[in-house]
Amino acid sequence: MSLPVSPLAPASFPELPPVPGVRIATGAAGLRYKNRDDLLLIEVPEGTIVAGAFTRSLCPSAPVDWCRDNLRLGAGRALVVNSGNANAFTGKQGEEAVRSVVRTVSSGLGVSPPEVFMASTGVIGEQLPVDRLNAEVALLPDALQDSGPAGWVAAAGAIRTTDTFAKGAAATADLGGAKATIVGIAKGSGMIAPDMATMLSFVFTDAALSADVAQSLLSQSVTSTYNRITVDSDTSTSDTVLWFATGSLANDPIASIDDPRVPALRAALDRVNLDLAHQIVRDGEGATKFVEVTVTSAESDEAASTIALAIANSPLVKTALAAEDANWGRIVMAVGKAGQRADRDALSIWIGDEQCAEGGMVRPGYSEAAATEHLKQPEVRIRADVGVGQGHATVWTCDLTHGYIDINAGYRS
Amino acid sequence: MSLPVSPLAPASFPELPPVPGVRIATGAAGLRYKNRDDLLLIEVPEGTIVAGAFTRSLCPSAPVDWCRDNLRLGAGRALVVNSGNANAFTGKQGEEAVRSVVRTVSSGLGVSPPEVFMASTGVIGEQLPVDRLNAEVALLPDALQDSGPAGWVAAAGAIRTTDTFAKGAAATADLGGAKATIVGIAKGSGMIAPDMATMLSFVFTDAALSADVAQSLLSQSVTSTYNRITVDSDTSTSDTVLWFATGSLANDPIASIDDPRVPALRAALDRVNLDLAHQIVRDGEGATKFVEVTVTSAESDEAASTIALAIANSPLVKTALAAEDANWGRIVMAVGKAGQRADRDALSIWIGDEQCAEGGMVRPGYSEAAATEHLKQPEVRIRADVGVGQGHATVWTCDLTHGYIDINAGYRS
Repeated sequence: MSLPVSPLAPASFPELPPVPGVRIATGAAGLRYKNRDDLLLIEVPEGTIVAGAFTRSLCPSAPVDWCRDNLRLGAGRALVVNSGNANAFTGKQGEEAVRSVVRTVSSGLGVSPPEVFMASTGVIGEQLPVDRLNAEVALLPDALQDSGPAGWVAAAGAIRTTDTFAKGAAATADLGGAKATIVGIAKGSGMIAPDMATMLSFVFTDAALSADVAQSLLSQSVTSTYNRITVDSDTSTSDTVLWFATGSLANDPIASIDDPRVPALRAALDRVNLDLAHQIVRDGEGATKFVEVTVTSAESDEAASTIALAIANSPLVKTALAAEDANWGRIVMAVGKAGQRADRDALSIWIGDEQCAEGGMVRPGYSEAAATEHLKQPEVRIRADVGVGQGHATVWTCDLTHGYIDINAGYRS
Repeated sequence: MSLPVSPLAPASFPELPPVPGVRIATGAAGLRYKNRDDLLLIEVPEGTIVAGAFTRSLCPSAPVDWCRDNLRLGAGRALVVNSGNANAFTGKQGEEAVRSVVRTVSSGLGVSPPEVFMASTGVIGEQLPVDRLNAEVALLPDALQDSGPAGWVAAAGAIRTTDTFAKGAAATADLGGAKATIVGIAKGSGMIAPDMATMLSFVFTDAALSADVAQSLLSQSVTSTYNRITVDSDTSTSDTVLWFATGSLANDPIASIDDPRVPALRAALDRVNLDLAHQIVRDGEGATKFVEVTVTSAESDEAASTIALAIANSPLVKTALAAEDANWGRIVMAVGKAGQRADRDALSIWIGDEQCAEGGMVRPGYSEAAATEHLKQPEVRIRADVGVGQGHATVWTCDLTHGYIDINAGYRS
């Protein structure tokens, strides 16, 4: 099945700079997709530290188990990724498949197996064709090239499944005179929900920092980026975010979260992750609207997030947005079902800049025409003020259309 | 918008018996629907006790607030229902609208206002046109007729919104020689989720029982019936179940939950409620499959229910069912995201009688053809055994199709 590119896609893939010492190769094992790459190998230099965040699914894939274990070292030398098969729910045979592919990489690069990270994305419950995969993976070390615009495009393309466009982002951070580069690639378009989904994201920087600082920054960043997006409320077995910091910038290493250079690094990391997260929503299966949902005056930020996600995940809200129907009653419904404290009689709701409701009922002078006009745009905003406290949160989602049904009723065909 | 009757509808509306003393009238106020009734008045005899269960939405409708208050009396004389407008999120004006319609009924029937229950279903956030409604409601007392097959059909028809068929059910219970009748009508087809949804259900019996026993039996019954169905995970502001017991059977009143006649009464009540709940799922917006999801060996019954609902609410599971695609990997995904304890490596999954997975991977000898064959039926079964305890639960849902999008992207148009 070949899908048209999402109408919400960026105009083009960004020109992503090299990250010194990071080398890229892609290949085609033909696991599921024909006439395209479905394998990615990335080599990082000695001394690279690695941080990670993973799905909270209680049925994680074999590669997720493998990466979680490896992460205790806080260091790594390589990443191998395949698309088309998630190697999830594949039992002991699945674990052995990871070890086998990892061995192929480790002997090809001359590194130890625990230094090799792996991610797989695609159909759940089918065994990886290990021999076919290994035959192709074995060719990749000789094909490695320095990272740069062309390499990043190829890498972002190889990890796609139902994605209709490749996803990349970059930012720089001034670390007291040394300019750090951060580059990320990601994939994901369905089975997307907080705590991530069939979402893979790999981020690289040349900054030198400790494993603890890297893990702390990444964990916080995930909370406000990947964990704030939802396409269909479904959570995958395979979600993986890995951050590789090579240290090749040779800055004085950042060893404490209180280092004055941390805010700049954090801001750049968050910018890359939020950009990638938004691109995933923009590629939401069947999406025609990019939707920002903000909840204010909740009991806490967490309560605000729960309410915002109840709105963002509501099929009735999402179908109304698809129809450009300013049916704000469905937003009231979603606030009511979220299970968090809200004052019905103080509740206010906006669609774009048009306030629909205030004080528990329709606002006198509310213009449905103005709200509808806003909903005709490809990017729409909803806000609910629930009138009980200071908590606020913003989440991003897309609408629910016939396209979603088409894609998901046909995915395995 | 006129919708074709659900392919999962019963062949015909059942022949529902009279409940002595219960009288029915319907009328047309033209609130939203043309050429059909949208008003229902039911009068019950003096001494009727009333039990109820309501939405857990924190933004309940004005009629729900009114009924909750009245229920403290445990008694009632009348029920008035309108379809087309939910009178939800309508502020003080909405409360006043309830009082106004109730006054019209109370003066027409010569009963006190707190003895009049009201339910409204339809669009949220619009004010009830009180004058138009009262003009029609005022005509209904003179039109009351004894309940019986024709009256129940008319009553079930008048309360519909997007329902494609009218819903009714009946059962009898042997109360130590006296044969009690239980008759129920219901509406609902979207915004359906546990803790009910835009779901109205009104149940009537001639049995004599105390208000405490009635409330206890109803609360328990709701847990295993209406709270075990989901169409789209959305929860309405207006869900209402009311049970009226007239006592006209003149049996020795059942005053204790330990009365030996209670099990027969409970079984009959549960049968009516489960039948109505299943009919609501069969009318799920766009539904082409009636789906039973059972979870076994969970940590508790509640955990089993949470996992079963995660499966039943997953858009990816529901679209796979619509496509008759035995994509059991999506069931694994849903088990994993439910947040309840499950042993991935002991997990077993069945589609119909075909076991797809065991011990954390595909079952050797699994026949996808057999599973697919089962999914071609209009009624399908899924089971997941999560391998950690003794808890079990069954929930019912429907598939997610283009029809759902059509209906919900066009509801207000």
